[in-house]
Amino acid sequence: MEDGARSVVIVGASAAGLRCACRLKRLQPGWRVRVLDQRDVFSYAACGLPYALSGDLPDGEAVRKTSYGVVRDSEYFAHYKGIEVLSGRRAVGIGNGVLQVERDGVTESLHWDDLVLATGARPRRLAGQPDSERVRSFHVWEDVAPLHGGLARGEIGTVAVVGAGLVGCELAEAFASLWGAEVTLIEAARQPLPQLVDSEVAACVARELENGGVRLILGAEVGVLTAEATGVRIPVGSEEIVADVAVVAIGVEPAVELAARAGIRLGPTGAIAVDDRLATSMPGVWAAGDCVECRHAVTGEPAYLPLGSLANRQGRCLANVLAGRDEHFPAVAGALAVKVFDLNVAAVGLTRSAARQRGITPRSAWITAEDTAHYWPSARDIHLCLVYEVGTERVLGVQAVGSGETVKRIDVAAQLIARGATLTELGNIEHAYAPPFAPALDPLAVAAFVAANQEDGVAGVAPVAGWPGRAVLDVRLAEEIEQDPFSGDGVRTVPLELLRESLPELDGERWLVVCERGPRAAEATRVLGQHGCEARYLGGGMSWRRAAHRGGDR
Amino acid sequence: MEDGARSVVIVGASAAGLRCACRLKRLQPGWRVRVLDQRDVFSYAACGLPYALSGDLPDGEAVRKTSYGVVRDSEYFAHYKGIEVLSGRRAVGIGNGVLQVERDGVTESLHWDDLVLATGARPRRLAGQPDSERVRSFHVWEDVAPLHGGLARGEIGTVAVVGAGLVGCELAEAFASLWGAEVTLIEAARQPLPQLVDSEVAACVARELENGGVRLILGAEVGVLTAEATGVRIPVGSEEIVADVAVVAIGVEPAVELAARAGIRLGPTGAIAVDDRLATSMPGVWAAGDCVECRHAVTGEPAYLPLGSLANRQGRCLANVLAGRDEHFPAVAGALAVKVFDLNVAAVGLTRSAARQRGITPRSAWITAEDTAHYWPSARDIHLCLVYEVGTERVLGVQAVGSGETVKRIDVAAQLIARGATLTELGNIEHAYAPPFAPALDPLAVAAFVAANQEDGVAGVAPVAGWPGRAVLDVRLAEEIEQDPFSGDGVRTVPLELLRESLPELDGERWLVVCERGPRAAEATRVLGQHGCEARYLGGGMSWRRAAHRGGDR
Repeated sequence: MEDGARSVVIVGASAAGLRCACRLKRLQPGWRVRVLDQRDVFSYAACGLPYALSGDLPDGEAVRKTSYGVVRDSEYFAHYKGIEVLSGRRAVGIGNGVLQVERDGVTESLHWDDLVLATGARPRRLAGQPDSERVRSFHVWEDVAPLHGGLARGEIGTVAVVGAGLVGCELAEAFASLWGAEVTLIEAARQPLPQLVDSEVAACVARELENGGVRLILGAEVGVLTAEATGVRIPVGSEEIVADVAVVAIGVEPAVELAARAGIRLGPTGAIAVDDRLATSMPGVWAAGDCVECRHAVTGEPAYLPLGSLANRQGRCLANVLAGRDEHFPAVAGALAVKVFDLNVAAVGLTRSAARQRGITPRSAWITAEDTAHYWPSARDIHLCLVYEVGTERVLGVQAVGSGETVKRIDVAAQLIARGATLTELGNIEHAYAPPFAPALDPLAVAAFVAANQEDGVAGVAPVAGWPGRAVLDVRLAEEIEQDPFSGDGVRTVPLELLRESLPELDGERWLVVCERGPRAAEATRVLGQHGCEARYLGGGMSWRRAAHRGGDR
Repeated sequence: MEDGARSVVIVGASAAGLRCACRLKRLQPGWRVRVLDQRDVFSYAACGLPYALSGDLPDGEAVRKTSYGVVRDSEYFAHYKGIEVLSGRRAVGIGNGVLQVERDGVTESLHWDDLVLATGARPRRLAGQPDSERVRSFHVWEDVAPLHGGLARGEIGTVAVVGAGLVGCELAEAFASLWGAEVTLIEAARQPLPQLVDSEVAACVARELENGGVRLILGAEVGVLTAEATGVRIPVGSEEIVADVAVVAIGVEPAVELAARAGIRLGPTGAIAVDDRLATSMPGVWAAGDCVECRHAVTGEPAYLPLGSLANRQGRCLANVLAGRDEHFPAVAGALAVKVFDLNVAAVGLTRSAARQRGITPRSAWITAEDTAHYWPSARDIHLCLVYEVGTERVLGVQAVGSGETVKRIDVAAQLIARGATLTELGNIEHAYAPPFAPALDPLAVAAFVAANQEDGVAGVAPVAGWPGRAVLDVRLAEEIEQDPFSGDGVRTVPLELLRESLPELDGERWLVVCERGPRAAEATRVLGQHGCEARYLGGGMSWRRAAHRGGDR
């Protein structure tokens, strides 16, 4: 370090802070870049921790290592990156150009020219959550070993996971599938992944969890937990669950104490407010990662989206800003993905409920499509829920679920949603087509077509909805119906090829039309409508219905 | 059909024509929609034919069937879609509101209010190509059975495939991998997939073909073939290849005779010129699919892109236009994909050579990245070549190759290229991240960062290029080097962690820095540059080099 060099101090040695530090040191090698962290283990891939727990990763330490096998500790950052990481130090106060830092009860002051807050998030706690090793959160490196050890030693055989968000679902899978633990997953909302996906997608996730042996309790408030020597008691409605350990996974909140104490402005989400150059309200103080709020691409409003992908990008962006470049962090559509057993779940933008909360009137279209050419031997069904704004036909969000290639459709949709695209633009997307990789029309484009048709009057019904007052018309072939009949009384069957000549017999009824994936039923619905019959069809078809059906017999 | 209803006649019962017909009949059920085709078998997935040949598809007929198993013949279109498909009829002339159609030597006239030309493409032929069953093209349904039968009966043991484009590569795999035939693949260009990918990506394809047992002859003009009773002789440079059968796969050309005879304007590519509503120069006559040219999103110029995905979209677009809607077919970036043995190859936009041909000055960045989090057990390396315009930093094209998830990156890149995005915008893309699906920074964004760094002076060298006058500096760990040393004399090894303290010893040399995937070498190149050393690094690293290295010993 040169004397008189600019000094940048970064609080928090996780994705945003370290990405910023490393990039900045590359751009400004003469600057002094220091990163502090209150813990001794840092710079691990936090998103990989559930797989370190589960044993999916043969070497759990891999989440701390580079791809070439070097542990990312202070030595690594010093020698490979030329930056100082000061671990085991807690930032306790921000002064004028100084940061007060505490270590083992001793306080020291670090001078900064620029200060970066990358303080991250912390797990939310239940009201009255006891401090006990039987009641745990799962957020940092240190949370893995006790659970892993307990499972390996057979001391943990029953687990209650409170909260069926991203981490809760991943943990339920880890405990049940890889350790064979008896898992109860408890969620206050009426669906898993609340706020992240709509109910039709959530139903597929619920079914997958139950198929995987997880007991799922939805719409149930958890009372005050009681930790005892032999287990933990969890009141859930009128029931009491007893487990060897409870893991509380009810989301995270931004860690903003340091900022708030210094008078730095927090936004409406409770996270640190930053502009598009990641500057806070205090001159010289910047922030990035899970402690800041973003601007949402769909609403234009502040949003709290603690996602590892964003933290990484913000860290890099901030380094460029600090180095003097004209760089701006754009609005965010909130793309996310999660694996739940054999389901690949991904989403971007707003769900219907999120849209309504923001005063936007949404409508949905549901499709089931093969993820490759339908004749390709490994073709798998995927289910898409497309949420768009009534009137403007702007795409608000897309959700995808299935064992096939769902994530790439969300990656593409993210680009469209980020720029405010309409159904027409989504229908016009180009994709790289060959039979092993995609159908000739991409499922995303098909979803846009289905939504546009819906606006033309060919309307679908949600795959998990009821249809009071409607009679069911099944337009599949006899052999398809035999294999998987639509359950319920009085189902009328007319294969699509005979529909036109059967129209006179179908008069006077309000129909719900069903087929295997949706297209035939949509076509029949249109023909019925043109004939003067009131009809709707089952969005996503029998395929989605089977995927979303709970109860195990189908 | 109602009397006096509008009559639409469509020539060509493949993707564009039938997609148009079915959609139009849905929108305008009272119209008469007729589709003619000169063949008796139509409406199959032509892109699936190589897999019908290979046996990848247990039921080759599947390419003719719907996903629910119904063959798409005239009966199907009549009953399911309400349209008339008149097969075995050749359109021979366009008059004023009539189409002359020939069948078995008899000519009839069909009245049209709107005429759609969806005449597709036909395979190019070699100069002097003999008419013999030993010299074949591979384009239509009827091309499959003779080859399949010959292979199954053991009559075809050696095959020469002329042309290493998309179909040629697929066929080489089909013959070699699934039938064990001895395959020679001959290409006039110096690489497989010419014009579709640049040389660094092509080198990986070449290696994969050779690893699969294909003999690959590049940069070799084919002379006049001679078909004999026992085989076919193919002069290739000074050599003569003898094979049981030769398949000529040197691309396709638009089938425009009918249009040209009627005085309809052809564009500079030789395909039918259409506006963005797919109207030809003749009132009431429209065209879609492999017989038309598109507007290229990058150049703004006409381009001939005979891709199944575009034909499908154009057919639907044209139906909307004919039905009276305000619909426009947008410019096209030309996304494509092909599987070559275990490699997934995909590309979009312009290659470097295509850019240069159009007077655009390109530059490339090469990266190797894991397609998931690096610690995920099934992570696989993928290689990306990003082509951008010098000066504007506009993204011109992206190519991806590898056994991992390459195609989704091209699907995303297509959205960016279609709207003229820059490196900065590509670096800002959002993606759905979870460890099983992607790294925290998507490889596409990383490629944009690498390109931007290159513009800052941290420059890569193409993975298949030479580096005259440069000394090699390997910054990997000793154990990595031991496992796969960089071949060549005088390689200097300094692990990255020791680089800063070793700088004085590295003075006065022009370095080519190498590491496993590129990032460490890029970092070292930057550090060397800041120290005053002239350095470049090997783009894509040792991983790409191994994937592109031909000769078999590595």
